[in-house]
Amino acid sequence: MSAKNQNKNFRAKQNWYSKNGKNSQYNGGKSKQLSKRAGVKAVAPIKKSPVRVSFLGGLNEIGKNITLIECEDDIVIVDCGMAFPDGDMLGVDLVIPDFSYIEQNVERVRGIVLTHGHEDHIGGLPFLLSKVNVPLYGTPLTLGLVENKLREHSLVNKVKLHVVNAGSTISLGCMDVKFIHVNHSIPDAVAFAIKTPGGTLVHTGDFKIDCTPISGETIDLTSFAKVGDEGVLALLGESTNAERPGYTPTEQMVSESLDGLFRKAEHYRIIIATFASNVNRVQQIINCAEKYGRKVAFSGRSMVTYMDVASKLGYLHVPKNILIDIDMLKKYPPEQIVLITTGSQGEPMSALSRMAYSDHRKVMVGEGDFIIISANPIPGNEKSVGNIVDELLKRGCKVIYESMYEVHVSGHACQEELKIIHRLVRPKYFIPVHGEQKHLRKHAELAEFLGMPRKNIYIGDIGDTVELCDDYMKPVGTVPAGRVFVDGLGVGDVGSIVLRDRKHLAQDGLLIIVASLDVYDGHVISGPDIVSRGFVYVRESEDLLDEVRKLALGILEDCAEKNIHEWGVIKNRLREEISKLIGQRTRRSPMILPILQEV
Amino acid sequence: MSAKNQNKNFRAKQNWYSKNGKNSQYNGGKSKQLSKRAGVKAVAPIKKSPVRVSFLGGLNEIGKNITLIECEDDIVIVDCGMAFPDGDMLGVDLVIPDFSYIEQNVERVRGIVLTHGHEDHIGGLPFLLSKVNVPLYGTPLTLGLVENKLREHSLVNKVKLHVVNAGSTISLGCMDVKFIHVNHSIPDAVAFAIKTPGGTLVHTGDFKIDCTPISGETIDLTSFAKVGDEGVLALLGESTNAERPGYTPTEQMVSESLDGLFRKAEHYRIIIATFASNVNRVQQIINCAEKYGRKVAFSGRSMVTYMDVASKLGYLHVPKNILIDIDMLKKYPPEQIVLITTGSQGEPMSALSRMAYSDHRKVMVGEGDFIIISANPIPGNEKSVGNIVDELLKRGCKVIYESMYEVHVSGHACQEELKIIHRLVRPKYFIPVHGEQKHLRKHAELAEFLGMPRKNIYIGDIGDTVELCDDYMKPVGTVPAGRVFVDGLGVGDVGSIVLRDRKHLAQDGLLIIVASLDVYDGHVISGPDIVSRGFVYVRESEDLLDEVRKLALGILEDCAEKNIHEWGVIKNRLREEISKLIGQRTRRSPMILPILQEV
Repeated sequence: MSAKNQNKNFRAKQNWYSKNGKNSQYNGGKSKQLSKRAGVKAVAPIKKSPVRVSFLGGLNEIGKNITLIECEDDIVIVDCGMAFPDGDMLGVDLVIPDFSYIEQNVERVRGIVLTHGHEDHIGGLPFLLSKVNVPLYGTPLTLGLVENKLREHSLVNKVKLHVVNAGSTISLGCMDVKFIHVNHSIPDAVAFAIKTPGGTLVHTGDFKIDCTPISGETIDLTSFAKVGDEGVLALLGESTNAERPGYTPTEQMVSESLDGLFRKAEHYRIIIATFASNVNRVQQIINCAEKYGRKVAFSGRSMVTYMDVASKLGYLHVPKNILIDIDMLKKYPPEQIVLITTGSQGEPMSALSRMAYSDHRKVMVGEGDFIIISANPIPGNEKSVGNIVDELLKRGCKVIYESMYEVHVSGHACQEELKIIHRLVRPKYFIPVHGEQKHLRKHAELAEFLGMPRKNIYIGDIGDTVELCDDYMKPVGTVPAGRVFVDGLGVGDVGSIVLRDRKHLAQDGLLIIVASLDVYDGHVISGPDIVSRGFVYVRESEDLLDEVRKLALGILEDCAEKNIHEWGVIKNRLREEISKLIGQRTRRSPMILPILQEV
Repeated sequence: MSAKNQNKNFRAKQNWYSKNGKNSQYNGGKSKQLSKRAGVKAVAPIKKSPVRVSFLGGLNEIGKNITLIECEDDIVIVDCGMAFPDGDMLGVDLVIPDFSYIEQNVERVRGIVLTHGHEDHIGGLPFLLSKVNVPLYGTPLTLGLVENKLREHSLVNKVKLHVVNAGSTISLGCMDVKFIHVNHSIPDAVAFAIKTPGGTLVHTGDFKIDCTPISGETIDLTSFAKVGDEGVLALLGESTNAERPGYTPTEQMVSESLDGLFRKAEHYRIIIATFASNVNRVQQIINCAEKYGRKVAFSGRSMVTYMDVASKLGYLHVPKNILIDIDMLKKYPPEQIVLITTGSQGEPMSALSRMAYSDHRKVMVGEGDFIIISANPIPGNEKSVGNIVDELLKRGCKVIYESMYEVHVSGHACQEELKIIHRLVRPKYFIPVHGEQKHLRKHAELAEFLGMPRKNIYIGDIGDTVELCDDYMKPVGTVPAGRVFVDGLGVGDVGSIVLRDRKHLAQDGLLIIVASLDVYDGHVISGPDIVSRGFVYVRESEDLLDEVRKLALGILEDCAEKNIHEWGVIKNRLREEISKLIGQRTRRSPMILPILQEV
């Protein structure tokens, strides 16, 4: 196999970083300064400006993608996403990156460049921008969605948004960032080629190769080729589908499947659930609706919002008189309707979920409905999607949800597509990004299979800073990184202690022991009263609770007799002995909260 | 297609119910009596004894399979399983059926016949048998596992276990139950042909068709054919894989895959996670270990238990000197070891999970380990399995987890296998069982596709009672059925209120307001004190909690001034106003618990 020989094509072109004449002048003093300011380990000065890449998110996790590129005195941030909470992050609404490194170095941040408008790439912006002011650079649709988001957070007038079209290059400090068009499950997505004095980095963002996209062009392979030909220091490649062999099919495939289903559903109302951001999918549904003479209504707040932005910016082409308001549904016979809705992931509060559980104010579903779930469950959502399908079936709906109907294709590159990008870009170093460990490893294995030496591949974690130049790629320290929880209006006020308590309460509930004690002698004046929540069905457990009350009273009186007045000691005894009793009787361990008051 | 013509083969043979001479004699008076006792709707008397089938579990759910067959004065119970809790059943250990209908009619229950030894078919037994004493009938391995389970619950001396070999028929009241050997992911599984005075029912249990099983025979298709030929009133068919086209591959396929992986893992220690109950899978692993000169150790309590029972009863053939205790691992070089472990579903406390999180007392995993997960994630477990894979990869282990390696095959029949059973049994009526709505529907569609009229198919729900005879199949009422939660030692003491509280606590935590009030005038003597758990990080929220305290004090004093002494009223005001304040400040809604004491 010739694979082993093809990775030698890397040529660091001197002119890239010497052409702007800044190289020697910036390098001598700055690399030291940078080390100090950045709070990373000091390293020996080197000849050329090295590039540093720091990951605040997107490694060993799905979502919350954010990468910092540092060279000389400048920092460019690629994306600023959020993640959805795991099942064990009880009550958490969303998860954002730890921005403290950005806050500490904000005067060096030249801008945030955005690959596309998905939440895992832009969802963290309001939280960062409420702390620091940094200009944003993105394609029209991406910035349209960002603007909407910033408006909701009353930040729209504060932040500078710079529209950049795919194919253009912008200068941010010592770095030139080229926006390269890619295909993805949202229009107007780009990859970046970031020319730095230390060499060029290519960050793919999220992408797939679609040679027959619904709208816009095929991914700009030519630009990848050109950048690769000029020499690329490192590729940062997305890894979402790195486990999947072969190719991701073209989005057009969905058109054919939809067409067949529209014919099959001739006498039904059609309801299709998909991602609100998948403008091309919605476009296909609208095209189908037009062909079969159906009106289209949108359901779900994010669906309405996305379609509004996408139509205004010309990414969604809606034929005249086809759109109707959801309130007008009753004016048309069901077989002339297509309802496009959110909820394809089984989200509990989504429009589809409400329909399934007869909780939607405007849409009642039943035997006359033909429902298509045009999305695959994201790992972790299989059960909730399954539950909704079951509910819809029980109501007599026809439901199309299996992969066999091909009503969904992925927006991410599979192995063969990844290989093509590797071959075009021909980087010296490779850093797999966007994925859990298994995805990153698979992508690394793929690079190795293509001939990249293992030592030129770096599998990192969030918080890692890696330094690259012609001579080496090595980790040089860490920056603060982690998961900051957003719960309601609170950002970061829910941490591990609060979550631990929530888990404890969720598991076995709580038992409160309240008593008023005599301020002088410590004897019980009132109580102890026992209050429980989430522990046992109280009416059937009066004996047990009575036993607890007696035990508590005994402990309190014993402490008073023995002149033990330190509340810490008394509370500990209450906790321990009651916990033991409860454990013996029920094999459960509710949270036990002794509350004492002095009177 | 001739499919439409082939379902006419049903012939109700008179001799089936007249041969024992009980028919007319039992029928006249008893059908009325039965209606009264069973508490189901009264129905008009009919010529022949009808059969009633009641479902206490296994419909619209995965697990907790239990079906009651009633005819004349007799009840036979098929299986008695448990289910694992869904994610929203916080703190619940397991879910069992509501047994009250059995308790009410225990004098008519002639026995429980068991299809196989999986938890979703036998796991409910200890809870039922601690209330009522009913004889059990099962194959040797099934009863071996049941015995073990009953011993743990100190029930083993109370209950009569009757070993029945596949191929035998037993009489239970007016019913004859034939045990028919089937293939499944545990040995010694059977289906039942239940001859009743009203006709024959075939209950498939869980099954697949494996023409080259690892041990034992191929499913006894001949018996299915004979029973079908004699005439079957209704088929109750399992639906787990009814969504999957084609055939489930033979268990032997795993042997080939394992062999390849053992060769690949030549220099590694091999760790394989699989279901403890999958004795044939373990047998294949042991065979492979023998072939490649490796010792075998078991890890995980249930793995040790199952293998113990299976070896004693001769279902697992272990070559001499191949088994070693897990404590002996260090005496052998890693490449001479196979460790077979539980945890293939990512269960948090399982052996594999402990290894992944470096929490296993005896096994440290790392770069020298080749880990095979020989199971597919059950829906809902994808995320936790994925997390364990990621952790193992981070520790440098090789991990085989993808379906592409074919290290797992299902134990359930796919569509083509289901069709064969339908064709052999040729029932008049069909009731899909064991599955969620989507599985039941798919199985019903399959029957319809084979030519069964839609009106002869019944998709039921737990609690439904359906009555069948030559002339009709119809629902005749309901019996108590539901989900009884087991939490620690408590059975049924955690219900919807407790779960609702746990959910509330899990979401936003709680806020307790405690105050001692003057017994005479209601003024505050001590407090109000504010205690919170799982709500906010207290140290950073002192201002908010102080605000709450002041508001509470204001309300209490206001109530005292206004001579409002009813605690219900005062507590409501506290809850409402504090809830509003907290909502405004944080957009969260913790549980608010006002606790007042009179002094």
